Amino acid sequence: MDKKIIQQCVSLLPIIRHKKPLIHHITNMVTANDNANVTLAIGASPVMALSKVEVEEMAAHADSLVLNLGILNPDVIESCRLAGKVANQKRIPVILDPVGAGATQYRTNSAKEILSEIKIAIIRGNAGEISALLGEPRLIQGVDAVSTNLSISDLAREASRRYGTIVAVTGKVDFISNGIHLISVFNGHPWLTFLTGTGCMVSSLCATFASVEEDHLISTTAAIGFFGVCAEIAAKKVEGPGLFHQVLFDVIYNMDVENFASSLQVEVET
Amino acid sequence: MDKKIIQQCVSLLPIIRHKKPLIHHITNMVTANDNANVTLAIGASPVMALSKVEVEEMAAHADSLVLNLGILNPDVIESCRLAGKVANQKRIPVILDPVGAGATQYRTNSAKEILSEIKIAIIRGNAGEISALLGEPRLIQGVDAVSTNLSISDLAREASRRYGTIVAVTGKVDFISNGIHLISVFNGHPWLTFLTGTGCMVSSLCATFASVEEDHLISTTAAIGFFGVCAEIAAKKVEGPGLFHQVLFDVIYNMDVENFASSLQVEVET
Amino acid sequence: MDKKIIQQCVSLLPIIRHKKPLIHHITNMVTANDNANVTLAIGASPVMALSKVEVEEMAAHADSLVLNLGILNPDVIESCRLAGKVANQKRIPVILDPVGAGATQYRTNSAKEILSEIKIAIIRGNAGEISALLGEPRLIQGVDAVSTNLSISDLAREASRRYGTIVAVTGKVDFISNGIHLISVFNGHPWLTFLTGTGCMVSSLCATFASVEEDHLISTTAAIGFFGVCAEIAAKKVEGPGLFHQVLFDVIYNMDVENFASSLQVEVET
Repeated sequence: MDKKIIQQCVSLLPIIRHKKPLIHHITNMVTANDNANVTLAIGASPVMALSKVEVEEMAAHADSLVLNLGILNPDVIESCRLAGKVANQKRIPVILDPVGAGATQYRTNSAKEILSEIKIAIIRGNAGEISALLGEPRLIQGVDAVSTNLSISDLAREASRRYGTIVAVTGKVDFISNGIHLISVFNGHPWLTFLTGTGCMVSSLCATFASVEEDHLISTTAAIGFFGVCAEIAAKKVEGPGLFHQVLFDVIYNMDVENFASSLQVEVET
Repeated sequence: MDKKIIQQCVSLLPIIRHKKPLIHHITNMVTANDNANVTLAIGASPVMALSKVEVEEMAAHADSLVLNLGILNPDVIESCRLAGKVANQKRIPVILDPVGAGATQYRTNSAKEILSEIKIAIIRGNAGEISALLGEPRLIQGVDAVSTNLSISDLAREASRRYGTIVAVTGKVDFISNGIHLISVFNGHPWLTFLTGTGCMVSSLCATFASVEEDHLISTTAAIGFFGVCAEIAAKKVEGPGLFHQVLFDVIYNMDVENFASSLQVEVET
Repeated sequence: MDKKIIQQCVSLLPIIRHKKPLIHHITNMVTANDNANVTLAIGASPVMALSKVEVEEMAAHADSLVLNLGILNPDVIESCRLAGKVANQKRIPVILDPVGAGATQYRTNSAKEILSEIKIAIIRGNAGEISALLGEPRLIQGVDAVSTNLSISDLAREASRRYGTIVAVTGKVDFISNGIHLISVFNGHPWLTFLTGTGCMVSSLCATFASVEEDHLISTTAAIGFFGVCAEIAAKKVEGPGLFHQVLFDVIYNMDVENFASSLQVEVET
């Protein structure tokens, strides 16, 4: 079973490079450059448009849509709503990255509001953010997760059931659930936590993989596993999170199906 | 003739480093860091100011002005107008980068609006963006050009005539026209398309070179050729677009007149 | 005396890594990524939140607050005020980085307005910015200092007296004063001026060190000296300001107390 999933995951990489899907991002000033560069490095095409004047037209041309709540204000929320509705009509997948949910009430509520109005295909967050969406008692420091009462695998499954979407909780081990199945991904590197925007980059990849595979349990596993595998390889080439940042893009750009398949470590639970 | 142009182009580099011109940017959150760093790396001085409260005062002190439409909203357009008018009064060159013209109607119209109100010295865009300004049928994907009906060299010349400015269409080969002459630049590297903001960086360099040379056919050729030469050298030192991003700044910082002259490949057509 | 100060400075590094303080930034789109990454590299936890809807709640959880005026508009000023007041009530240190004070009247006035309403612990700027706060005749080009009438050491001391805060004037030599004492830091590297955001990064470090040491003359000296020491080491490993940018984060991440102590060069004047 795990072998079959690995095969399904890695087969998406050449499809992305062939189709070069257009990924519309509504994202934030801290990580917008990284969102764009990770999307380009894998071979897809990012576009960033924020203003409510144009997000509907831009989303209508896109192959998937990222709603990243990293820097929130009422205008951004309104743009998320407008673009999300068009994406739903056009049936392109919408990925929600509820950055900092739980850090302020405003962030938690905004993420929930979007979930109530827009059909989200995938939610990708850390344990603190996802537990905030469940109203779970949790500890959070800023936008970084600290701990939670539920086990993280239960968190993924429960959030998936509550919101009827794929939920990915990334961390030391990553968990992806469709409410029934749970997939664990064991790739990654501690330096991902010493660099800003790595969660945001994974969400861009989730959107990229989702644009070429309708089974989003698979596409999300592929995206998160791909990023983790690339992080492991990049980390071996450098001495800290600074050069790691750039070498990560090089590894993503150069990754091939064979290396991806041989390094990907997943486990499926039903 | 080509040798004379090469000589004129490369002679601008030491002038920039000596004068350290101040380049006022109205730019976007995706590439603002890169706009600033490319301007610093060549030896000029960038300043980013966006708010309508201060753009007029900032533009009044600058040696050239970049209007980059990468993230558009009505406030940005208003600031472009205000700063542009001051720049026109002070007779400093204004460079327009119509990012994503053609991707949405709003972007196309905003670029045209600015062209109708502000005297622009140089327009720098890809084939999709420039053809959108001409109302030409074209294919565009997001903010990246795909193809166009006119030959790209005709596009540069025709847009230059239509708008009475220097027009640079950058791509695999770059074309710069003043409506009569057409210069082709053959430098560059494919990785420039796997990194966000490389078009924006060229526009910053167009503004920098324009601030020290009144003949903008020459200054724009110099800027685009300089960037292409540096990209070729940087690409030889790395394995992908990630480290390329940073090494490109190192090469720009260290480039000397001799290397610039011996690598620059231009062709002039009258 | 200098040896004791060096000891006090370097002893803060392990405390930061142990406590992992949360540093709330109100900052700008040009350098937000760098503000976050420098804070992560040293081992602290950055959070960026800008909107007036949430800055008060975010500031209430933070260990220190950075008010960076790099991209100003009335909304940012309002958010600075709101977050600053909460920080004052909670008695967490507030660091003001008056980016481009003196470049436009709006920037100078906004910085002064914040200084009149919020109790600031530390002001960190270049000579042009600090002299603008004193209403001193000075030359400034964009956001980069050029020269001033006062000696820079006098500038630090006088600004400190005028505003009743610690003042750090960074440049070739850095000066930190509490109005009485003056500390000079001799570490640093010229490439810091060929890279955008290095001043902003120092301000993030000033906030990080201030969150673990109440004597802000010491904490600010530690922050500025730490950054200068890391810059010197990073510069030896690369050929220009591009890779320097990333290697700087690696050096910050790997710096230990011994290397910090043996490289730090300070002089105290009473």
